[in-house]
Amino acid sequence: MNRVAIFIGSSSDFNVIEGALKVFKDFDVPFILEVTSAHRTPERTKDLIRTFEESGGEIFIAVAGKAAHLAGVVASHTTCPVIGVPVGGSSVNGYDALLSTVQMPKGVPVACMGIGKSGAINAALLSIQILSLKDELLKKKLINYRKEMAAQVEKSSEDVKGRL
Amino acid sequence: MNRVAIFIGSSSDFNVIEGALKVFKDFDVPFILEVTSAHRTPERTKDLIRTFEESGGEIFIAVAGKAAHLAGVVASHTTCPVIGVPVGGSSVNGYDALLSTVQMPKGVPVACMGIGKSGAINAALLSIQILSLKDELLKKKLINYRKEMAAQVEKSSEDVKGRL
Amino acid sequence: MNRVAIFIGSSSDFNVIEGALKVFKDFDVPFILEVTSAHRTPERTKDLIRTFEESGGEIFIAVAGKAAHLAGVVASHTTCPVIGVPVGGSSVNGYDALLSTVQMPKGVPVACMGIGKSGAINAALLSIQILSLKDELLKKKLINYRKEMAAQVEKSSEDVKGRL
Amino acid sequence: MNRVAIFIGSSSDFNVIEGALKVFKDFDVPFILEVTSAHRTPERTKDLIRTFEESGGEIFIAVAGKAAHLAGVVASHTTCPVIGVPVGGSSVNGYDALLSTVQMPKGVPVACMGIGKSGAINAALLSIQILSLKDELLKKKLINYRKEMAAQVEKSSEDVKGRL
Amino acid sequence: MNRVAIFIGSSSDFNVIEGALKVFKDFDVPFILEVTSAHRTPERTKDLIRTFEESGGEIFIAVAGKAAHLAGVVASHTTCPVIGVPVGGSSVNGYDALLSTVQMPKGVPVACMGIGKSGAINAALLSIQILSLKDELLKKKLINYRKEMAAQVEKSSEDVKGRL
Amino acid sequence: MNRVAIFIGSSSDFNVIEGALKVFKDFDVPFILEVTSAHRTPERTKDLIRTFEESGGEIFIAVAGKAAHLAGVVASHTTCPVIGVPVGGSSVNGYDALLSTVQMPKGVPVACMGIGKSGAINAALLSIQILSLKDELLKKKLINYRKEMAAQVEKSSEDVKGRL
Amino acid sequence: MNRVAIFIGSSSDFNVIEGALKVFKDFDVPFILEVTSAHRTPERTKDLIRTFEESGGEIFIAVAGKAAHLAGVVASHTTCPVIGVPVGGSSVNGYDALLSTVQMPKGVPVACMGIGKSGAINAALLSIQILSLKDELLKKKLINYRKEMAAQVEKSSEDVKGRL
Amino acid sequence: MNRVAIFIGSSSDFNVIEGALKVFKDFDVPFILEVTSAHRTPERTKDLIRTFEESGGEIFIAVAGKAAHLAGVVASHTTCPVIGVPVGGSSVNGYDALLSTVQMPKGVPVACMGIGKSGAINAALLSIQILSLKDELLKKKLINYRKEMAAQVEKSSEDVKGRL
Repeated sequence: MNRVAIFIGSSSDFNVIEGALKVFKDFDVPFILEVTSAHRTPERTKDLIRTFEESGGEIFIAVAGKAAHLAGVVASHTTCPVIGVPVGGSSVNGYDALLSTVQMPKGVPVACMGIGKSGAINAALLSIQILSLKDELLKKKLINYRKEMAAQVEKSSEDVKGRL
Repeated sequence: MNRVAIFIGSSSDFNVIEGALKVFKDFDVPFILEVTSAHRTPERTKDLIRTFEESGGEIFIAVAGKAAHLAGVVASHTTCPVIGVPVGGSSVNGYDALLSTVQMPKGVPVACMGIGKSGAINAALLSIQILSLKDELLKKKLINYRKEMAAQVEKSSEDVKGRL
Repeated sequence: MNRVAIFIGSSSDFNVIEGALKVFKDFDVPFILEVTSAHRTPERTKDLIRTFEESGGEIFIAVAGKAAHLAGVVASHTTCPVIGVPVGGSSVNGYDALLSTVQMPKGVPVACMGIGKSGAINAALLSIQILSLKDELLKKKLINYRKEMAAQVEKSSEDVKGRL
Repeated sequence: MNRVAIFIGSSSDFNVIEGALKVFKDFDVPFILEVTSAHRTPERTKDLIRTFEESGGEIFIAVAGKAAHLAGVVASHTTCPVIGVPVGGSSVNGYDALLSTVQMPKGVPVACMGIGKSGAINAALLSIQILSLKDELLKKKLINYRKEMAAQVEKSSEDVKGRL
Repeated sequence: MNRVAIFIGSSSDFNVIEGALKVFKDFDVPFILEVTSAHRTPERTKDLIRTFEESGGEIFIAVAGKAAHLAGVVASHTTCPVIGVPVGGSSVNGYDALLSTVQMPKGVPVACMGIGKSGAINAALLSIQILSLKDELLKKKLINYRKEMAAQVEKSSEDVKGRL
Repeated sequence: MNRVAIFIGSSSDFNVIEGALKVFKDFDVPFILEVTSAHRTPERTKDLIRTFEESGGEIFIAVAGKAAHLAGVVASHTTCPVIGVPVGGSSVNGYDALLSTVQMPKGVPVACMGIGKSGAINAALLSIQILSLKDELLKKKLINYRKEMAAQVEKSSEDVKGRL
Repeated sequence: MNRVAIFIGSSSDFNVIEGALKVFKDFDVPFILEVTSAHRTPERTKDLIRTFEESGGEIFIAVAGKAAHLAGVVASHTTCPVIGVPVGGSSVNGYDALLSTVQMPKGVPVACMGIGKSGAINAALLSIQILSLKDELLKKKLINYRKEMAAQVEKSSEDVKGRL
Repeated sequence: MNRVAIFIGSSSDFNVIEGALKVFKDFDVPFILEVTSAHRTPERTKDLIRTFEESGGEIFIAVAGKAAHLAGVVASHTTCPVIGVPVGGSSVNGYDALLSTVQMPKGVPVACMGIGKSGAINAALLSIQILSLKDELLKKKLINYRKEMAAQVEKSSEDVKGRL
């Protein structure tokens, strides 16, 4: 059963989420991926949400740029957690996607991540943190992931000292 | 027959549009007004759009603040012209509503006005400019409106000189 | 008879509007194109507006960057709908062109689009939405255009899944 | 057993979270509330996190202004979901708290809400959405909450029409 | 003979320029003051410029808010120096008026001052600096003005020390 | 012997530094206070710097708003540490003072604090941190100050819980 | 006799002013050019100002980036008109140089141009506009310059139409 | 004995600090360099601070991007002076790192430098300014450094004049 649905607003956003897809694969968390647009395919977006919820899906991740309404539109159709990833690179430096995603009105939350690839990776990790609340195995993997990250920082510190 | 539908995202936006309502009344353009939310009442919003279109309505005006998705959501459900009015007063000085309204992806236009009350008045005037393309009487009223505006500027110039 | 006048502030803005020109050609909407500047050729700008209006033209599109006054200057000389397209790429990331175009004072509306090429395409589509209010054929083409856009989203979704 | 820990960076942030506290009470979700600072009481913050986790707590909400590091510091000490609420009102209009909360580096996610009181209410609702993934009763309450919200929008629409 | 023409976009900008008017009176520099709008009275604006230039006027000061096109429009019709004063207080904190005034395209300069009352006073002083290039008396007054300013700073320093 | 020189750009900045003055008094660190302006009294500013340095003074604090050049001008005349405090409240929300203070060119550092009263208090504390590098007594006072701050946070946490 | 002094804050700013130098040469206006820094060479800057003033120089142009204090520092030492050109390309998109240049306190004006090369060209043109107030020949050249600019716009319009 | 500890949040920040390292070497000031992260290695960061302080270290420099909490976290664990260098290059143009570093709450100061490489060089120079308060030799070197900088400006001025 797929636990997370990832929606990207355009196929050009695929490169933004590649790191996130790798996280899901590394943690063995099944997901679906769809290109769907809040503005160009509003009905399709709604149908995908309904289908995913009825199949037992738990979390939505929406990735979009500019006037990034996708996460908000998804959140308007579900009571599952919705994680929004703003995509930068617009004329106004990503402030459009960031503010469109994060400044949701009260009553309909979106969990906004940082802009771009790092934000997408964090969306995957937050999903896994949420799922790990009822999954001891995921929790252990998360703790290991943190330890490996810390070990990498220490290793890169040694590398950098070597450059002095 | 109502020609313009005005949607406000919250009843607290009513004061933003009072000047716009006066314009429609002065120009004798019939309109409907509804409170409806992109996020809290997505189905209602869609139904209102359908109903208004089927009744022969021509133009939508959407007024919203923060992550102002209302105009974009309306535009995703219609091919009638949609005019967006960003509402300011948020923690980030209206940039959220402005960018969420204006930075629409290609394919689904929203005609964005300036922030707040002036923007709402201009939304009414733009509606009338559009409707006047097939209505000589409205065109004449518009030209008169401009003349009166110019006369008021001249009058206020005399007033100001009196203060020297 | 030409229905839309497109003014660009500089020949370097031509690449911004190529997509918009294609839209007008695809929809068979006749237009004129002129380079004219609010600041360098104020008289020429005014003359072009008068001539176009007298010939029965209906809509103006003004495309400009930096302190983008072109749309506002056009709007000051006409009661036809004026659509403004801010051009980005300036030192301050397009905020200058965006704010100069969108923050019009009450009484003289400009319909502001998003920044750059997408905004220009949307300016063309908004023009056609306005013209379609009295043109059933254009309305049908618009509805088809939306359907094709939606179909492309679905197709790109299949493509992206193929990359997993 | 308390399921959510709410940390505010200063007692002056209490008014920001009052709406959120009401949500938790309405949904019967037990929580703890502490004033603790990333910078003034780093050890206390860490100890509170450890204690809450060991007691079986599931979700953290961190509310802070200016260089709002509280959510990030909490996230650095736990693999539970951390929700950040930026507090506005600073000299730079809340952009400091927003960007300090949302732009987390990859590997340590924070779920950022909108700025201020609405964001705090949404933090409570997102917590409940997460907890409802394994709690049918909470899920039902959430769906009811949405329905009531929608009903209120419809009611306010009637009220507004009465003012015409 | 009037040497400076001050144009304000609206009578509500009068309070912004009161300090500037006092400077002109203190320096005995004759000026005219008009309310005129780039958008609401484009012809009047152009006529006022022509008349002032033909009467031997030397410098223009244009004061406007929001999409502040007034200084740019004046500059498009004259080769006299044009000083622009952006008026703040808009929803986007004066960035609209500032960027609309300062980011002029090459070929048509506007001398932009700071936002608001201080900027208006500086517009008066810059005018006098320009006029003093061919007027020894004005030059002497300017040097005295600077000395008095410096003396006031020293005096206020004594006052402040008295509060310790 | 006075160890710290505090320069404020205008007597209206006095209220910004009152908290900082209290810190110096609480820590028994002697200081001088002067109103002096980078632009209105450049010679006085330079003379005050020279005099203070020759008397054995060690640290400068410069407090200014808008195009806040004061800290940079002080830094250009000394090799003592210079701490800059941007003053907010301008039309552009303190970004002018912040960026004018912090974005110094390489070679001439200014230690920039946060905007306003908190920044001024931190300027005092940073001064004391610097002076404590050769003063054990100040170091002990600083450690006590931190402990008291932490105790106040704990106390306010109890207070807030009492409001639940 | 040199009439204009151009100061650039760093030799890397030379490419910003090349267009401006060409304007001065085309208009036969003699100028001096110096690299001098508000922060690295405050005394040199002051000496250059004095020397230029005593030699009968009339106008200063200061070109600088980041915390661009150069124009303000020049203005603090002279009562001649000072024109500031902010240089972009910094990490914060030129807002630092723009705000540091334009937001001068009352009493010490700087005539701020747009950011970068266009701003530098306009600084040259504004200088010539100022000098033309007592120089009929320069005035005529300015009027010709405008006519040529307008002719170029018309020509580029023909070129662009050829691309349709 | 090492006097300054430089912490970078990631090995990719190494190129930002190379100029700063050269300054320390030129001034013969011993330092340590570590990669350590506020979020990925909070314990390691704290341990490094304790060890450095106990060994008699005096000043911390923290270099980080995005939600740059590193300087603030260091400051929360020490009463030594902490200098923060924001790293730019993020989607929002360095405003995230700048505001996260500079807008510290009262009680826990961070001395914020400008963004990027220039800021890092200035962090080194500010460290040396602080250390020179009790080190006559360093003071002399600083004064020489300033003189050389000034000489380079004069030399570059000659070079630039050669290009005319």
